Amino acid sequence: MSYFSSDFTLGILGGGQLGKMLLYETRKWDIRTRVMDPSAEAPARLACNTFIQGDLMDYQAVMDFGRDADLLTIEIENVNARALEDLEASGVRVYPQPGVLQVIQNKARQKLFYRDAGIPTAPFSRYAYTSEISDSLRNGGIAFPFVWKSAQFGYDGQGVKIVRNAEDLRGLPNVECIAEELVPFKNELAVIVARNSLGQTRTYPVVEMEFHPEANQVEYVLCPARIPEGVAQKAREVALQVSESLGHVGLLAVELFRTQEDEILVNEIAPRPHNSGHYSIEGSFTNQFEQHLRAILGLPLGQTDSKVTAVMVNLVGAEGYRGPVHYQGLEDILAMPGVTPHIYGKKETRPFRKMGHVTIVDPSIDRARERAAEVKQRIEVVSKKQDHE
Amino acid sequence: MSYFSSDFTLGILGGGQLGKMLLYETRKWDIRTRVMDPSAEAPARLACNTFIQGDLMDYQAVMDFGRDADLLTIEIENVNARALEDLEASGVRVYPQPGVLQVIQNKARQKLFYRDAGIPTAPFSRYAYTSEISDSLRNGGIAFPFVWKSAQFGYDGQGVKIVRNAEDLRGLPNVECIAEELVPFKNELAVIVARNSLGQTRTYPVVEMEFHPEANQVEYVLCPARIPEGVAQKAREVALQVSESLGHVGLLAVELFRTQEDEILVNEIAPRPHNSGHYSIEGSFTNQFEQHLRAILGLPLGQTDSKVTAVMVNLVGAEGYRGPVHYQGLEDILAMPGVTPHIYGKKETRPFRKMGHVTIVDPSIDRARERAAEVKQRIEVVSKKQDHE
Repeated sequence: MSYFSSDFTLGILGGGQLGKMLLYETRKWDIRTRVMDPSAEAPARLACNTFIQGDLMDYQAVMDFGRDADLLTIEIENVNARALEDLEASGVRVYPQPGVLQVIQNKARQKLFYRDAGIPTAPFSRYAYTSEISDSLRNGGIAFPFVWKSAQFGYDGQGVKIVRNAEDLRGLPNVECIAEELVPFKNELAVIVARNSLGQTRTYPVVEMEFHPEANQVEYVLCPARIPEGVAQKAREVALQVSESLGHVGLLAVELFRTQEDEILVNEIAPRPHNSGHYSIEGSFTNQFEQHLRAILGLPLGQTDSKVTAVMVNLVGAEGYRGPVHYQGLEDILAMPGVTPHIYGKKETRPFRKMGHVTIVDPSIDRARERAAEVKQRIEVVSKKQDHE
Repeated sequence: MSYFSSDFTLGILGGGQLGKMLLYETRKWDIRTRVMDPSAEAPARLACNTFIQGDLMDYQAVMDFGRDADLLTIEIENVNARALEDLEASGVRVYPQPGVLQVIQNKARQKLFYRDAGIPTAPFSRYAYTSEISDSLRNGGIAFPFVWKSAQFGYDGQGVKIVRNAEDLRGLPNVECIAEELVPFKNELAVIVARNSLGQTRTYPVVEMEFHPEANQVEYVLCPARIPEGVAQKAREVALQVSESLGHVGLLAVELFRTQEDEILVNEIAPRPHNSGHYSIEGSFTNQFEQHLRAILGLPLGQTDSKVTAVMVNLVGAEGYRGPVHYQGLEDILAMPGVTPHIYGKKETRPFRKMGHVTIVDPSIDRARERAAEVKQRIEVVSKKQDHE
């Protein structure tokens, strides 16, 4: 089957910034697309061939949407996996496979998968309800501090909390969850693995993620990570092990901890293009969105190495502002060499909302990192209306 | 005025591949767009906010289209310049300026502009009608061989012919034209100059264009050109001289001849993104489409140097085929390192129609050029229906 300028139709569940950037690549290759998103103002509404407003968790909405596609993919994990299973059974190709999504959608299941596959990850306990943790603490089953994670719908700092005492525990919702040992890591790293439907794999270079101390959001992503080659090698091997155990088709972003002893532990995974791979648009021979397309279409995978070193800065809504967005200082950063802003097209800002990102490329990673800090200082995502919460 | 995620609207006259690729950049910065093109299936129909089907040469259509834009630009020169003048007078910003377009739309006027500005160009004579050339030949005013060019609407090999004898002359349309001395050049080169509304300029590296011997179309573009640094320096200086004499805002692609004596002569110019700059999407720190936006919006210009050397191959319809397009061998070239195809999205192929292009990047320009020849051999733009003209 030919995908290019043909009647072949790719369905994409989710129309956020990841979907929007994926559409640059479907346009580049003239691949017909259908996108579904709950928001009528989704960033991916433009540039797809057909846009459908619908609830991604609704069985019937996903069934109705998927039936008219030749191949379905996602740009967000929180979709109705049962509908995807039924669509797959009816002959629609679905990548990543519904079974892969089901493992990833539930963090307890994700951790059990690591354990069963012999993949290094932080020790954890699993609870049907948060309230059971108190018993476990009394029995000495676990001890403070630990990381509490809701099993379902953890995304971008929601559903994750470091619990240091009984007080921290009290505010948490009483849901299925895990308690994970707090890893005193040296770095947080990530590796993106591409795997196509023929089982061919390629890994991108290891990147280093620097987190915002309060928002628990990635602030900078550096490619390559400033780590010894041996550690990078181990990180790529672990990521490949996850990819092969999972047998996914498409991209798999593997977030990792580098411990004080230079061990690599898997933190979380996402079976799709990922924030930690945005640098690849400017930095890599094949950007992650093109690579995802290549993988799910069963095309040969592209080169994953870098043309130039890169640092990515997330542009998030400044604290204290809520309302129609204004990018203050954007013109200033455009005057800096090697700086490319990406504006996702969300009309309203709110504190810590991901509104865009900026890539800074430079032959020197240290200079790129310095310039990234300068970018961060000069640009602010605000609103004309001040927020007085 | 803020351009990003705002109500500011950019109008683009023309919706072909250049418009389509410009829209990747307006999407990247969430800039609102209106596009007009005569074809309902124009490649840029998707990904703009509003598409209007209309005749670009029709005064009223251009007036109606332009009134609702804050800034107008073009992706093709053949637009109604009088309408643009009137829109400019009514307060709409128009870049490139209508006066610049008027110089460029007519090849006789273009040549007179070079002469008046002291810009090196091949000697020429100007004729109100092709039939006048015969008199000039009899009087010894000119001699065979020469290059005949229609003054109006020359584009992509139409309206240009090398005239070697009286026979060649007879087939030509009897229109306003020029007869230009045939330059026995060593290379055809091009330089893209960006100039923003504040008068800041930046030049891209000199590229080398290799032409298809029959179709008079560019087959390969190499960046950088394989020429001595002194010649490259001179080419950039001449291009800057054209840019400054013209005072355009936006990109200016300057096509040049390098003579046997290493002189640089201006051949033709285009005030917009250009085929000779497509390599910049993969090769340059700032691609030409983003640069055009920066220039017309009065933003700081981006870096014009290259991340990696690049060769661009045009994908044109194969001879003997006409009808619904099929890209034979596309999967094969995707397996080659550093190869990125761009499919414009035209539904029907015909001989020599520009259907897409492929960029090949590699640290070595010679290896990139070799791989480009291989790409050219492996891919063919055909149709399921054979053409029996």
